[in-house]
Amino acid sequence: MAKPNTTPIRVIEETPAYWRAVFDYPPFNVVDGDVFQALQDLLVRMEMSETLRVIVFESALPDFYLSHFDLTGKLGNVMTAIGPSGLPILMDTFVRLTKVPVVSLAKIRGCVRGVSSEFVLACDMRFASRENLKLGHPELGVGLHPGGGGTERLPHLVGRGRALEIVLSANDFDGDAAERYGYVNRSLPDSELDAFVDALARRIGSFDRPALAAAKRLVNEVSLPSSDQLLAAFTSFGTALGWPAVQRRVGAVLARGLQSDAEFEKDWPEMLGTLGDQGH
Amino acid sequence: MAKPNTTPIRVIEETPAYWRAVFDYPPFNVVDGDVFQALQDLLVRMEMSETLRVIVFESALPDFYLSHFDLTGKLGNVMTAIGPSGLPILMDTFVRLTKVPVVSLAKIRGCVRGVSSEFVLACDMRFASRENLKLGHPELGVGLHPGGGGTERLPHLVGRGRALEIVLSANDFDGDAAERYGYVNRSLPDSELDAFVDALARRIGSFDRPALAAAKRLVNEVSLPSSDQLLAAFTSFGTALGWPAVQRRVGAVLARGLQSDAEFEKDWPEMLGTLGDQGH
Amino acid sequence: MAKPNTTPIRVIEETPAYWRAVFDYPPFNVVDGDVFQALQDLLVRMEMSETLRVIVFESALPDFYLSHFDLTGKLGNVMTAIGPSGLPILMDTFVRLTKVPVVSLAKIRGCVRGVSSEFVLACDMRFASRENLKLGHPELGVGLHPGGGGTERLPHLVGRGRALEIVLSANDFDGDAAERYGYVNRSLPDSELDAFVDALARRIGSFDRPALAAAKRLVNEVSLPSSDQLLAAFTSFGTALGWPAVQRRVGAVLARGLQSDAEFEKDWPEMLGTLGDQGH
Repeated sequence: MAKPNTTPIRVIEETPAYWRAVFDYPPFNVVDGDVFQALQDLLVRMEMSETLRVIVFESALPDFYLSHFDLTGKLGNVMTAIGPSGLPILMDTFVRLTKVPVVSLAKIRGCVRGVSSEFVLACDMRFASRENLKLGHPELGVGLHPGGGGTERLPHLVGRGRALEIVLSANDFDGDAAERYGYVNRSLPDSELDAFVDALARRIGSFDRPALAAAKRLVNEVSLPSSDQLLAAFTSFGTALGWPAVQRRVGAVLARGLQSDAEFEKDWPEMLGTLGDQGH
Repeated sequence: MAKPNTTPIRVIEETPAYWRAVFDYPPFNVVDGDVFQALQDLLVRMEMSETLRVIVFESALPDFYLSHFDLTGKLGNVMTAIGPSGLPILMDTFVRLTKVPVVSLAKIRGCVRGVSSEFVLACDMRFASRENLKLGHPELGVGLHPGGGGTERLPHLVGRGRALEIVLSANDFDGDAAERYGYVNRSLPDSELDAFVDALARRIGSFDRPALAAAKRLVNEVSLPSSDQLLAAFTSFGTALGWPAVQRRVGAVLARGLQSDAEFEKDWPEMLGTLGDQGH
Repeated sequence: MAKPNTTPIRVIEETPAYWRAVFDYPPFNVVDGDVFQALQDLLVRMEMSETLRVIVFESALPDFYLSHFDLTGKLGNVMTAIGPSGLPILMDTFVRLTKVPVVSLAKIRGCVRGVSSEFVLACDMRFASRENLKLGHPELGVGLHPGGGGTERLPHLVGRGRALEIVLSANDFDGDAAERYGYVNRSLPDSELDAFVDALARRIGSFDRPALAAAKRLVNEVSLPSSDQLLAAFTSFGTALGWPAVQRRVGAVLARGLQSDAEFEKDWPEMLGTLGDQGH
């Protein structure tokens, strides 16, 4: 039974300098308008805190980190309303996460696809479970393309060839492949992941805020995509949502069990090559 | 006996959405003016097709993918004539390949050097045989430098340090090293390469053309070198062709068996460190 | 007993085309004003030579390549005087090394931290001992941040996520991790490192100077950070040197044995997570 009225993100203040944000939105941690609202609220807290240095984003569900964008339409205002950065909420959330003077670590287990990949790409570092990771961009398989920064952030991280493979294949990447491609910082044995990230967070949490802020700002200066580039992808994505083929493909995956059948939800990118109708 | 009047590239239409282009230009698939003409003709077909989504470039020769630029002077008009993009044919061919709204996969076995490395760098993805790959830029060894995009595309893909090693060492890279450096997307056991690339091509071939085109265009926006940067290298390369040392070094490798002796053709970069005459 | 009046760098002219520069400044090869002066002198020789093609930078000390910036204040004029490039000496040294038409190879054994990491990042290629490498940026641990190009060069080389990890964690990277991240070109078994680098240097030393110069210049065109970006980091670093927390943290590591105790000098980044005073 799904929990009613649960807030999608629980925040645990390990110390004034080190928080953990736990995605707990059963059954699949689907990214809908409520998740974005919770991220917006959390960003305000992060921006206002005078003690916070580092935050770890993790999931309470063993098989799903954040699964993917809600495909049943519960997106709230994320495509239309404008956030504090002047960008639409979807993009505003990710851009502010990259720029806030707090270090963000994604500790990743389970499925992380589409907009959820874009969330971890907006975090400062990504550490994954070697045995338990399905990370990728399935958008092409439902007739869409990434619209929240994936096409802008991946090429800088993994090079043009691997970025095109990730985006155009719509395939999942496991722990080994994601590390080899540089999609995540590193993959660790599942049994070591918690201790590794906790030690790193406590270490960073002991450093001085002005130094952390200055170092992150300098790295950002040479590594973040421009707002214009991000908006071009967002606008193209908004147009794509209206393409007739998208409705057909999205309808097909929902009918097959997306957002309802746990087994299908774990492996749905596998069948995306079977939805074509170009008659050959 | 070399086949007379063979077209250098055979095109096999697996489906309306998925073609294979097979380099079959014995004995070594040397890249001369006829190869560029065949690529130009193929690009027009790719640009005109209303069904094509993905093309795989492969070789019919087990030991040579495309070997290297013709060093006996049979370059046709590739350095002088201007192609549809406004760039010289050599560069026009590679630039249009990166921009055409068709996904290009290089399936690589054997020797791929110099301008041939630049060809695969202009493809959207590169998959290599782990056991059978000799990929590199031997230009420095004959007194030249890359002029068809290698110096512009490699740093984005593998970082400055590894790009300088590839270009300045003039050494071959095998399947393991090319994958570790990010020079290719991945290297696969030779026995698995065909099935892997075929499955990927059929999967991409089932996706919608507008989504593929938009995604590739967005990735290109943040990952392609500018025409000015590409032209600077091309112009410098054209000048270098006239340097006296180049004639001497090229003459030496031709005399030793380049473009005539199959064994020498396979391993010639090994001896490039022995051609110096600076008297020490 | 420390040697008096030793020049920090010995230059060995293996051939007119190939030199080795050996850091020999016991006990730890600490980077002070004298080391920068020696590098400045060497750069003039490199720029003036008409025969030199390649230089290998290595250490005479088994456990220290270059350890780190002198934290006792013996920095000479490196922060204040202006070099031939118009940049402050610290930055001028690294920028001229990236641009001189001589190929620079860092052959690395032992500890290489902070400004020393920035030195090897300014070399054209980095080859490390797999068993004997401690490479990293400990600046955050003493309340500072990199100021000599680390924050500008790392993101291009290893991507934003790994660059932020290197800089913000202040942790050491060993041979395996440094290679996997692309922080070094490759790590080799210690017993093979000398022969590998020597063979590469002799090979490059046999190539023609105009070709080497043109190729390096073309790669630089698409891979070097701008002077403005480098100066922003340098200026921020200069400001940070005056932060009160820095004095406290630097005092603590000097009191614990930095620049005096060989065992502490080898492993000091390990304890940097224990110097915080934010009261939690």
